[in-house]
Amino acid sequence: MAQQNYQQKTLGILGGGQLGRMVIQSAINYNLSIHILDPDENAPCRRICQKFTQGNLKDFDTVYNFGREVDIITIEIEHVNTQALKKLEAEGKKVFPQPHIIELIQDKRSQKQFYRENGLPTSEFVLVEGKGDIAQHLDFLPAVNKLGKEGYDGRGVQLIPSAEDIDKAFDAPGLLEKFVDFEKELAVIVARTENGSLCAFPSVECAFHPEHNLVEFLFSPADVPDAIAHRAEKLAIEVIEKLGMVGLLAVELFVTKTGEVLINEIAPRPHNSGHHTIEANFTSQFEQHLRSILGMPLGDTGIRSGAAMVNLLGEAGYSGDAYVEGMDDALAEKGVYIHLYGKKITKPFRKMGHVTILENDLGQLKEKALRLKDTIKIKA
Amino acid sequence: MAQQNYQQKTLGILGGGQLGRMVIQSAINYNLSIHILDPDENAPCRRICQKFTQGNLKDFDTVYNFGREVDIITIEIEHVNTQALKKLEAEGKKVFPQPHIIELIQDKRSQKQFYRENGLPTSEFVLVEGKGDIAQHLDFLPAVNKLGKEGYDGRGVQLIPSAEDIDKAFDAPGLLEKFVDFEKELAVIVARTENGSLCAFPSVECAFHPEHNLVEFLFSPADVPDAIAHRAEKLAIEVIEKLGMVGLLAVELFVTKTGEVLINEIAPRPHNSGHHTIEANFTSQFEQHLRSILGMPLGDTGIRSGAAMVNLLGEAGYSGDAYVEGMDDALAEKGVYIHLYGKKITKPFRKMGHVTILENDLGQLKEKALRLKDTIKIKA
Repeated sequence: MAQQNYQQKTLGILGGGQLGRMVIQSAINYNLSIHILDPDENAPCRRICQKFTQGNLKDFDTVYNFGREVDIITIEIEHVNTQALKKLEAEGKKVFPQPHIIELIQDKRSQKQFYRENGLPTSEFVLVEGKGDIAQHLDFLPAVNKLGKEGYDGRGVQLIPSAEDIDKAFDAPGLLEKFVDFEKELAVIVARTENGSLCAFPSVECAFHPEHNLVEFLFSPADVPDAIAHRAEKLAIEVIEKLGMVGLLAVELFVTKTGEVLINEIAPRPHNSGHHTIEANFTSQFEQHLRSILGMPLGDTGIRSGAAMVNLLGEAGYSGDAYVEGMDDALAEKGVYIHLYGKKITKPFRKMGHVTILENDLGQLKEKALRLKDTIKIKA
Repeated sequence: MAQQNYQQKTLGILGGGQLGRMVIQSAINYNLSIHILDPDENAPCRRICQKFTQGNLKDFDTVYNFGREVDIITIEIEHVNTQALKKLEAEGKKVFPQPHIIELIQDKRSQKQFYRENGLPTSEFVLVEGKGDIAQHLDFLPAVNKLGKEGYDGRGVQLIPSAEDIDKAFDAPGLLEKFVDFEKELAVIVARTENGSLCAFPSVECAFHPEHNLVEFLFSPADVPDAIAHRAEKLAIEVIEKLGMVGLLAVELFVTKTGEVLINEIAPRPHNSGHHTIEANFTSQFEQHLRSILGMPLGDTGIRSGAAMVNLLGEAGYSGDAYVEGMDDALAEKGVYIHLYGKKITKPFRKMGHVTILENDLGQLKEKALRLKDTIKIKA
């Protein structure tokens, strides 16, 4: 038989947060052995993985030594030491996504240049080395100033509406993107295996928190004309193919008021915009991630039910031991699924969990999502 | 708020097999801390629970000491020391299902007497103390001789077609049940909380392996007239109410050729006949088990999709390190879900995993189930 015996594989994941945690929930079905590397001794994965190493994801030796013990290495956060991953790859380890792609995506500057070089539609931009450079590009405003590296979960992004706001800019290498007055924000998750088979999930629609640049609501499928949804899916496929990436890629896109579809950012891993797939699609993004990096046949990405996802963020004004208010009320509703991430301590806007709501009628879905958001609160 | 903070609870499970394993997969969503007691150092739960104790489930001290450390105690196998559980209950621990009910169900003799005393329809039976007693009841044949205690996974059940077969009978306390020439076998899983709220899953249909008395295929919903399905669900509700049980109860039933519905056996825990609920129903039996014992609102048991479940039993003739043949072919099919139980060693007819198939057309579903059964084989 040419078929693989997946259950004897050990998978190492760099990062042990909620994304890794949901990967583990899927991996249990295949008897995979999961090793986790994370700097936080209380990482969400710690108590459900088969081996936990506390360590710095950016330290060469830590990552290298962790990777040597496993069969396949993947990530759940892109801020990792790619030099160590490259060495492991050179030594014959399977590292998916490939280290040079993680590196390209880590830096929003090289990410944007990749789009430009490959004729992929994205907003206009210029590279800036620091605050001082912004003044050279006043004609570019209003614009979004993004840090090249280390941005995460809404950090590292700053709107610069006009010349008076230059002081808000980051004083580090980054880029200035022309502000896109978009109509909608979409996301498409696409997977690709080593043998080149690939498959995209249907487009979803993201509604961001006005202040914190975190996904607040997500709706699946996106409420856009079919042509727009397909255009987004086609672009996501084009990106992963042009990258030649193996693994799962989340592609965030803007739909402009004139119906253009522009690539915003990408993440080479399971993503907040795919959490609903656990209940709402035939295959979840976490399962698909495993399938793509292990070389299994990719799963069907079709929609089983319309869905909304609401992030459970730590309530403003509360820090300390987390308490979930309103859980019983939420659990009493049909088609409501609560996922808590195993984080003991809450702080304002920390991602503590999410709720998925299944409902095919978009009007009712939106109404339920809003209601649920008011029902469940993470306090301390 | 009167609502509970479930995520601070520690749940102790007696038994660490596949049922416990799938409970843990659900429990991760609620941040529950799970302690497992199991005699097998390689129990399927061992590497995904938060604390594992290797020990004898029938030993008073082992069970008592294990239970003292947790907030709530439940089971995934009924062959446990109920005296220790009674002591824990008397000391104020929540033990669900309640120990006296586990005890009643442990012995198929008291189980049957319970049905009789409560006017619940079941096949005719007589109690026997051993082989010698069978000869007193020749008019009762053909009959099924069941061991009172310790029967599990098809063991402890013997058909006695005629007087010539008396030698096959068990020489231990048990019962002789009049053979029911049934048309179908159904199963209904029902949950009940401490405050008395209850909810049944829709009836499913079980097809047993002709020799090994293990469920070979399961179809949901059962292909029977609505009146029969409802009668089965009503009986399941009646049983759990008359028991006053808190937790999840699986009720196996016969539908006779004249359309009578008879209770066959019950199990006070998640059950093989409910595995499909993970993908096919709005709430899975494992989630419902947690909800019932933790006092959460019960989940909606409605069907999301028609489904079949195929047990992956160790192939006859193979013993040793398990290898899953045909996994890629199975994974390539839409709506096919593989669950492996983390058992390293296979042996003939050992339950190694299961496959769920989603499909609303019953004809296609049966065809797919048969095909899948031939596709995936557990070998060594």
